[in-house]
Amino acid sequence: MQPDAQLDRVFVALADGARRAMIDQLSKGPASVSDLARPLQIALPSALKHLALLEAGGFVRSDKAGRVRTYRIAHDAFSGLEEWVSQRKTQWNRQFDHLAKYLGEDE
Amino acid sequence: MQPDAQLDRVFVALADGARRAMIDQLSKGPASVSDLARPLQIALPSALKHLALLEAGGFVRSDKAGRVRTYRIAHDAFSGLEEWVSQRKTQWNRQFDHLAKYLGEDE
Repeated sequence: MQPDAQLDRVFVALADGARRAMIDQLSKGPASVSDLARPLQIALPSALKHLALLEAGGFVRSDKAGRVRTYRIAHDAFSGLEEWVSQRKTQWNRQFDHLAKYLGEDE
Repeated sequence: MQPDAQLDRVFVALADGARRAMIDQLSKGPASVSDLARPLQIALPSALKHLALLEAGGFVRSDKAGRVRTYRIAHDAFSGLEEWVSQRKTQWNRQFDHLAKYLGEDE
């Protein structure tokens, strides 16, 4: 079970088209801030803000070589999201199983 | 492919602990606004605002019988989210396949 605040960060990171576009671009390979800002036609400070939210949500990692910081997709980028969805679906299927059992008993 | 604005609504709906708690409660069965507001200790107008965002994101449906509006989880609640994640993962695995092929050729 993930803490609530971390789940907030996961979903906040995804709740913006520019940030989802960055995830799509990084899924194809590592990129610099300017590589990521260019297709979105946004300024570097704005791109850096988006990237900070993506890092907080666990979707991207970055490292600096000399003066260049390179961003890449985190290898476990979608694990938090998938864990949350699968927990919900388990709970939900259980509810349907109870209902099916109840309807079966009623026949 | 889902339009960007609808994906915004999906993730905005999930980016709040109170709304995720409502999804959890509704996964166990239908509930009224007051049923949903009580465990969260929030006022009805605030609960209604959360529910409007959950409906916009496609997670809950509601219907009115007489004066009582009942909320239930949408049967396809997670389909938008799962579709988006699986598209990303397909793209990403393709990237790893290319890398594996490249490394293979290099041997």
